[in-house]
Amino acid sequence: MADRVIPENRGWTPQEPAIPWQNLKKNTDGMVPVVVQEDGSGEVLMLAYMNETAYLATFRTGRMTYWSRSRDELWEKGATSGHYQYVRSLSLDCDNDTILARVDQIGAACHTGHHSCFFQKLTE
Amino acid sequence: MADRVIPENRGWTPQEPAIPWQNLKKNTDGMVPVVVQEDGSGEVLMLAYMNETAYLATFRTGRMTYWSRSRDELWEKGATSGHYQYVRSLSLDCDNDTILARVDQIGAACHTGHHSCFFQKLTE
Repeated sequence: MADRVIPENRGWTPQEPAIPWQNLKKNTDGMVPVVVQEDGSGEVLMLAYMNETAYLATFRTGRMTYWSRSRDELWEKGATSGHYQYVRSLSLDCDNDTILARVDQIGAACHTGHHSCFFQKLTE
Repeated sequence: MADRVIPENRGWTPQEPAIPWQNLKKNTDGMVPVVVQEDGSGEVLMLAYMNETAYLATFRTGRMTYWSRSRDELWEKGATSGHYQYVRSLSLDCDNDTILARVDQIGAACHTGHHSCFFQKLTE
């Protein structure tokens, strides 16, 4: 059985976040929501959640890593689907309670095959 | 004392959401997060939260209306600051648990005066 090759985020330097996890304001579930935006197109792809392990893994690897609330486990985006999200930049909002990630999206962000998860129209 | 004039979202038609509130999946606090993106620039401005009253008010008025978790009250964005957000479109993600709003932002979205709330850099 061939070794599984995890694609790298070329040029990414493992780093510590400029603002440590303990300074972030957690939601009722102890997590922080992350808005994920495609760097090239500006398209908003999804909203996901991080715990401390996911936060540190993302800064270490340069690959977006979340906490899956449905499976209750660490979730490196793309580890199963191949649809990795390479970090371009991460920023924090004024209340320290939401992260914005700008990423290069490999393939589709949505498990349905849509490029963005926001494909259901609510307005006329 | 002059009557307060609430600016309109010109061309907005009061409407019912295509997907009713009861079909949305709420978070632990009974709310739904809303990613707010500027329609012209594509810039992500903020993340806020809606309850049912805020959801229906937004579709009725065409002005983004949230539930303020800090003040625990209905919050029509701009009602105090004048920095209204006029709805261009609203969509829902694949899990029915997050809304994406595309808006015309009047003035700054952030109470700090920054155009976007995401002004704190986390990555090098």
